[in-house]
Amino acid sequence: MITRFDKLQIDLPHPRNPSPNSAAAVQELLGGKFGEMSTFMNYTFQSFNFRGRSKMRPFYDLVANIATEEFSHIELVSYTINLLLSGTTKRGKDPTATPLASAADARNSYHFLASGQQALPMDSQGNFWTGQNVFSSGNLKLDLLHNFFLECGARANKIRVYEMVDDPTARAMVGFLLVRGGVHIVAYSKALEKLTGVEVGKLLPIPDISNKRFPESRKHEERGLHQILYRFNAEDYKEVGTIWNGAHPEDGSELRVEDASNEGFTPPDLDEEPQLTAPIGPDIDPDMFKDVATKLFGSGVLTKAGKGNGKTKTAKSRR
Amino acid sequence: MITRFDKLQIDLPHPRNPSPNSAAAVQELLGGKFGEMSTFMNYTFQSFNFRGRSKMRPFYDLVANIATEEFSHIELVSYTINLLLSGTTKRGKDPTATPLASAADARNSYHFLASGQQALPMDSQGNFWTGQNVFSSGNLKLDLLHNFFLECGARANKIRVYEMVDDPTARAMVGFLLVRGGVHIVAYSKALEKLTGVEVGKLLPIPDISNKRFPESRKHEERGLHQILYRFNAEDYKEVGTIWNGAHPEDGSELRVEDASNEGFTPPDLDEEPQLTAPIGPDIDPDMFKDVATKLFGSGVLTKAGKGNGKTKTAKSRR
Amino acid sequence: MITRFDKLQIDLPHPRNPSPNSAAAVQELLGGKFGEMSTFMNYTFQSFNFRGRSKMRPFYDLVANIATEEFSHIELVSYTINLLLSGTTKRGKDPTATPLASAADARNSYHFLASGQQALPMDSQGNFWTGQNVFSSGNLKLDLLHNFFLECGARANKIRVYEMVDDPTARAMVGFLLVRGGVHIVAYSKALEKLTGVEVGKLLPIPDISNKRFPESRKHEERGLHQILYRFNAEDYKEVGTIWNGAHPEDGSELRVEDASNEGFTPPDLDEEPQLTAPIGPDIDPDMFKDVATKLFGSGVLTKAGKGNGKTKTAKSRR
Amino acid sequence: MITRFDKLQIDLPHPRNPSPNSAAAVQELLGGKFGEMSTFMNYTFQSFNFRGRSKMRPFYDLVANIATEEFSHIELVSYTINLLLSGTTKRGKDPTATPLASAADARNSYHFLASGQQALPMDSQGNFWTGQNVFSSGNLKLDLLHNFFLECGARANKIRVYEMVDDPTARAMVGFLLVRGGVHIVAYSKALEKLTGVEVGKLLPIPDISNKRFPESRKHEERGLHQILYRFNAEDYKEVGTIWNGAHPEDGSELRVEDASNEGFTPPDLDEEPQLTAPIGPDIDPDMFKDVATKLFGSGVLTKAGKGNGKTKTAKSRR
Amino acid sequence: MITRFDKLQIDLPHPRNPSPNSAAAVQELLGGKFGEMSTFMNYTFQSFNFRGRSKMRPFYDLVANIATEEFSHIELVSYTINLLLSGTTKRGKDPTATPLASAADARNSYHFLASGQQALPMDSQGNFWTGQNVFSSGNLKLDLLHNFFLECGARANKIRVYEMVDDPTARAMVGFLLVRGGVHIVAYSKALEKLTGVEVGKLLPIPDISNKRFPESRKHEERGLHQILYRFNAEDYKEVGTIWNGAHPEDGSELRVEDASNEGFTPPDLDEEPQLTAPIGPDIDPDMFKDVATKLFGSGVLTKAGKGNGKTKTAKSRR
Amino acid sequence: MITRFDKLQIDLPHPRNPSPNSAAAVQELLGGKFGEMSTFMNYTFQSFNFRGRSKMRPFYDLVANIATEEFSHIELVSYTINLLLSGTTKRGKDPTATPLASAADARNSYHFLASGQQALPMDSQGNFWTGQNVFSSGNLKLDLLHNFFLECGARANKIRVYEMVDDPTARAMVGFLLVRGGVHIVAYSKALEKLTGVEVGKLLPIPDISNKRFPESRKHEERGLHQILYRFNAEDYKEVGTIWNGAHPEDGSELRVEDASNEGFTPPDLDEEPQLTAPIGPDIDPDMFKDVATKLFGSGVLTKAGKGNGKTKTAKSRR
Repeated sequence: MITRFDKLQIDLPHPRNPSPNSAAAVQELLGGKFGEMSTFMNYTFQSFNFRGRSKMRPFYDLVANIATEEFSHIELVSYTINLLLSGTTKRGKDPTATPLASAADARNSYHFLASGQQALPMDSQGNFWTGQNVFSSGNLKLDLLHNFFLECGARANKIRVYEMVDDPTARAMVGFLLVRGGVHIVAYSKALEKLTGVEVGKLLPIPDISNKRFPESRKHEERGLHQILYRFNAEDYKEVGTIWNGAHPEDGSELRVEDASNEGFTPPDLDEEPQLTAPIGPDIDPDMFKDVATKLFGSGVLTKAGKGNGKTKTAKSRR
Repeated sequence: MITRFDKLQIDLPHPRNPSPNSAAAVQELLGGKFGEMSTFMNYTFQSFNFRGRSKMRPFYDLVANIATEEFSHIELVSYTINLLLSGTTKRGKDPTATPLASAADARNSYHFLASGQQALPMDSQGNFWTGQNVFSSGNLKLDLLHNFFLECGARANKIRVYEMVDDPTARAMVGFLLVRGGVHIVAYSKALEKLTGVEVGKLLPIPDISNKRFPESRKHEERGLHQILYRFNAEDYKEVGTIWNGAHPEDGSELRVEDASNEGFTPPDLDEEPQLTAPIGPDIDPDMFKDVATKLFGSGVLTKAGKGNGKTKTAKSRR
Repeated sequence: MITRFDKLQIDLPHPRNPSPNSAAAVQELLGGKFGEMSTFMNYTFQSFNFRGRSKMRPFYDLVANIATEEFSHIELVSYTINLLLSGTTKRGKDPTATPLASAADARNSYHFLASGQQALPMDSQGNFWTGQNVFSSGNLKLDLLHNFFLECGARANKIRVYEMVDDPTARAMVGFLLVRGGVHIVAYSKALEKLTGVEVGKLLPIPDISNKRFPESRKHEERGLHQILYRFNAEDYKEVGTIWNGAHPEDGSELRVEDASNEGFTPPDLDEEPQLTAPIGPDIDPDMFKDVATKLFGSGVLTKAGKGNGKTKTAKSRR
Repeated sequence: MITRFDKLQIDLPHPRNPSPNSAAAVQELLGGKFGEMSTFMNYTFQSFNFRGRSKMRPFYDLVANIATEEFSHIELVSYTINLLLSGTTKRGKDPTATPLASAADARNSYHFLASGQQALPMDSQGNFWTGQNVFSSGNLKLDLLHNFFLECGARANKIRVYEMVDDPTARAMVGFLLVRGGVHIVAYSKALEKLTGVEVGKLLPIPDISNKRFPESRKHEERGLHQILYRFNAEDYKEVGTIWNGAHPEDGSELRVEDASNEGFTPPDLDEEPQLTAPIGPDIDPDMFKDVATKLFGSGVLTKAGKGNGKTKTAKSRR
Repeated sequence: MITRFDKLQIDLPHPRNPSPNSAAAVQELLGGKFGEMSTFMNYTFQSFNFRGRSKMRPFYDLVANIATEEFSHIELVSYTINLLLSGTTKRGKDPTATPLASAADARNSYHFLASGQQALPMDSQGNFWTGQNVFSSGNLKLDLLHNFFLECGARANKIRVYEMVDDPTARAMVGFLLVRGGVHIVAYSKALEKLTGVEVGKLLPIPDISNKRFPESRKHEERGLHQILYRFNAEDYKEVGTIWNGAHPEDGSELRVEDASNEGFTPPDLDEEPQLTAPIGPDIDPDMFKDVATKLFGSGVLTKAGKGNGKTKTAKSRR
Repeated sequence: MITRFDKLQIDLPHPRNPSPNSAAAVQELLGGKFGEMSTFMNYTFQSFNFRGRSKMRPFYDLVANIATEEFSHIELVSYTINLLLSGTTKRGKDPTATPLASAADARNSYHFLASGQQALPMDSQGNFWTGQNVFSSGNLKLDLLHNFFLECGARANKIRVYEMVDDPTARAMVGFLLVRGGVHIVAYSKALEKLTGVEVGKLLPIPDISNKRFPESRKHEERGLHQILYRFNAEDYKEVGTIWNGAHPEDGSELRVEDASNEGFTPPDLDEEPQLTAPIGPDIDPDMFKDVATKLFGSGVLTKAGKGNGKTKTAKSRR
């Protein structure tokens, strides 16, 4: 069971250059084979499936906790994509003005046809994420090795997307995730180390380029974010610290467990895109909806809705 | 952002007739087009993607809250599958004894080859869940209509799996989910009603067979579980009650919002399956692991691990 | 543009041994790579796409006409599957009786979960038909060669399904389609011959086993059915006879064009399966539906519907 | 069974701006999840699969009739794509001139490699249509709800493609299909209404933008085209009028059934594309083919064919 | 470039219990995500793609050599499947005898419909191998880590198939491949060790169950087969020995490079299956083929072919 | 069993215009339905699967030999793609310089995210090759017909890629493969002719455009390359000459078998792409790797590696 907070892990800046092709590239980090959907779902299923957990509790606690953080990562990547797509077509209510003309040449047409300029669980080629990406063999050593490899593959993709897109929204997100993903890489190497005695952490970094080369990562590492593993419920996942401890294999700093809180940052209110009838279209029945609105909100919201995204403080206009 | 608790929504009984083919059937409710992965991911992405939420807050709050509960549902179905698969092959460490012989005729070979007799995000034919199942058009009315339809399709599948498998574990899970899924159907019908004034709820039940015909559902409805929508964070999702209110369209009882808590039931500790080296195999280096174990648990866990699933109180042996 | 008649090409007998696994095998002829969906869609798209048709009219007319007949073939295979599935589970309205218990071991679970014991465009492994199966290169010679190969592959599959299932419904269908598919093989060999002068027809039969070995085919060939190409609109497809003429390459009989008519056989009325709420469930609101029914049919249909499939003359009960 | 006419539902204008990327966008309406292949195949299979039709005849008749019209829609969209692709590369017989150079940057390479600048059953990302898109649960209410949702989703896509492409060929097609698809939306809402008494039609339009905003639709609605349901065989589908009657839910005009005729418009003769050897290549054996041609057409067609698309009145040159 | 020999790596015994479901299970080792198609194709593409090989030559040589051996592995698994399928249906030429009746319940229908009781590149659920299984990031450390993980996953599957099927053909093949795959695991661990200094080999065995527990593996290890890396061309791949040397991480024995030769064992001549017209059908034109045969073989082969598989010494009859 | 040589069939020139979109187009010839992966795998599996080979030996020998050559073709196409991708992004070690910026608009993002600017087994739309492309019915005539068709389809694609890309690397490769693929087309037509007496070769060329029109093919045909079938092991595949003999169907020249040798051309050493950490990244631990390097190569390779691709004679710099 989970509970949810209306918060993001970081305060996501608004894009300087919203761009459908940048958004398309970022999709790899969401729905690619090595994207956040894969990390989220791998660890989630491994935690549901964990056999003999009474004996191997620390490993179970570790996997379950990392799974939990991954939800925030699919969230963060999705918001990045949504921001990169907002306002990239001509806003308005008249379809004859060909408001989506620019979208005809965009690499990923699903952003404009299947979604309302929004994220979907697909990769940078518009291929959808699939459950085939979940590995859960039941053998702990093999599953941990998989997770270690998965995180390294995910890291390679993050680096490459960073090199492809220089928009500050994308880089803030990637920079942060390089650090947090780095924690997960180390966590799985520590787990393998506990199980086998082999110093797997010494293989790092994979690929062999340091997080320090990315300013948006470095700033987080400077305040020690790479040393912290979150525990999402102190009561339920007590033993995670028996694995997560000792020195960080790359810089030798001391690792520590921290109880996760629901602190975070309010997610941006995404602009309306009236030409996509997102969220509502120009011909919603005014009288009908006014009644509804009055009941729902106790005020004349409808009029505003009818007028499109006027002065409301929304994501795009706050830039 | 989410946090997680090591709890299940119900106290899942142990199977009377563990069976690979029953487990294979139940997979439809996990990874099928209309399975819980689909409901979880549809609402999750719709919540990330919601445009103009400042104006349409109650709808956003509704979708985000239902998404949250769906996590518990993929969890519950996964545990059901895991229990139905536990102990269905010959336990032991000698591969020459052909311990998986019975699996050769099982409908879904992935349960024995790709997983350690465990759930994977696939359907009853062993086809993996795909992100194509996520619908997020950006238009609120269309997304709500989709969700209403999705939940009805999910309900049809639940009923059919119930009719296919009579094991008490499966039926306890399905019975509960028919009630909670029923809440989500009503929620989306209420949302459409608020938006349009059309009494969509009067279409129910779809398919036209009442939850009352399922004893494992009826008992939950008798204590009013079908009237409650969970709010997962009172602070963050204030307005869900402006949609979830009034009379239940099927029995007229009064709907109410309840703040979700982390109460629930301890998930079963799943038996080891040594013939699948789940979680560890017979040849793990004893000296190496003993050191590790001592450090980790401060006791001689390894000896027990070496001996397989002796007297530990595990899922299977509690039956 | 097309028009449709409520008729089947043959008078399909009722199965002697309805069987989910027989139905599963027959699916290959519907949604397999070489199934009727493939022949229907290949020729349909090739006809839409035909370039330079004013010069090559006879070829266009041929492809368009064969495409048209293929619709009747997807229809015929679908009805066969539906009949083979009817009554294979326990009929009734009580889900607790586990009416679908037998379905848990059936090879194709979609017949019971995704459909109401009904055909879907998938193959014998439950994999869905895909548009990748359509070949339309634009080069006439290559497209004709493809079609010739496709029909030979389709013939191999028909023969193998015949050898797998001995139920009279399946064999009546396969026997008929071997003959009509045989016409299409010859048609494409004739077309290649007209275009190139090579006696492609002499390659037949492929695979090298004659239709004469199948009693259910032989009876149709004895009345000359293998000599007839249907023209679906004498006005619009005048020139098909410039290709379809001369001697049949296997038995030397004279080929002839015949104008297709809407004669045919009334399709069976498929039994209700109340346990699958197909077409309606036990809890449809009686008062509501009675009003509707009265308006629709002018009589008390509802009572009967409410009672399940009593004495109505339906497919299954007519046997 | 069907019969076919060499006609299109409308007189399709020739494109002003043929464009591979416009063609790629239009593919969504052909082979997308919500494209015409989906509507055609859903209703076709639902009609084959309809259980208990003797009691529920009007619903069967409705579904079968709508299925029939959908064939004309896959046809119309395919021709639109073919016209948008014609002449978009350098015509000629010399491969060293790199005649397809411009195609290297086109979004959908299959148009140039897998087809001869022609339509294929795929979507706007070049992903092929799949039978997974067919929903046929056997439960009438659920199937009708699905169809209603499917048509609304299809409508959203049509609107978005309209907004993306301003070429008159594309817009004439979309404008017409918005009207005819609109009829199908209303038809399924009426069917649900008859079955349940709920005024489903009042949810319309979904998305909430009226057809009146599209000039190419408005002109058809002004002559009442949105009020007509076609009956494709008066004899066989008698009862469709018991559902299709009363007032149109959007403008209150009176609905009426009309017997479909084979009237329509001659489809354009698509230009040859010699660089793609479509339909034949430059090196077809002249002597061989002359003989063939003489027999087939009684004239020296070959010389012309050998010369490419000289003065023949073809699609492109008629502009 | 390669050259090929008509030889298998081992002398494959004939099955004692040919069985379609055993064959279906073995398919996982051919076309599964962790099957031999995956190892073959991963290393083949990594070798084609290797950047900077002049500097990193030993690694290139290693990957290219392992790739080469994998071809023999897809070959060996394919023959195993073919033998397990031979003679599992009723042999004969009369289709009305329902010779494939037993196949209707087999887990994998493609063996009887798409192939002539033969191997295809698919897995144990009949899902086809896909190029998505190829990982080639360009980063050497990451690619080596992937390969190490891939081989461990492959090992887990081999063990599980061994435990599922006790037929001597299957076990001889798996026993041999456990040893040779074991060489590849060690090779990649050595490569990682050379690159990073981390003793990756100490993680072995993964899963933690020794090859010694499998008699069919043990016999090969007893003669040192696990110590040998094959070099497929002494001239071209000189430097493989700079990686493959030192002690075996599991038993400390000395590793050595051996130049591969074309020695091996004649593959079995697979029985004809006349009911599947494999390789030819009963109605091949006798006169025509006799001429051909005479020319080809200089003797009256045809008569024999016409008579089916009489006394010819074939795979099946040699048992 | 195979052995491998570090050679390519031709001396591949370096590209004049490296281009991601050209590389994307060429992928169709590698991983498309009609690409070299398909020819390689079809014939390889057909050879493993060949039933009754003792009687039909010449056909077996033919298929096995053609399969062997196809390996060189996937190799040649892969190197072409790798060369077309080399140096298409900004080389360097600083990720903040957005070195992959140009890749954001490339048609195939996998070249930059999933690979290190390298070939993968996918087609021109980035869809991965699948085992579904393998046809192996067991019936010899049908399999040969398939192969003949497959090669014609492959030829059409080669021609179209040639027309799309004018870079000399791509055209040298395509020109050569048109000739060698042409040999395979003729080989399968000869095989069908031997089996049936039908002059299938007279259908050629398909599509109807001669290889003579392609200068890069003509030069090979002028030296007779189209007349030679390679035998990859004179001992093991003796009888291939009983099929491959007589006159070439297009120009009447005499066909001959030639024993393949390992002659060929050294493959280009592909440039490093440091921004993709291919093969190693900037932060590989210098001390650690220096030790390794010294042991491996006996010299100070590391320094060079640390400095990137300085003066080393690599593919790109040799141009």
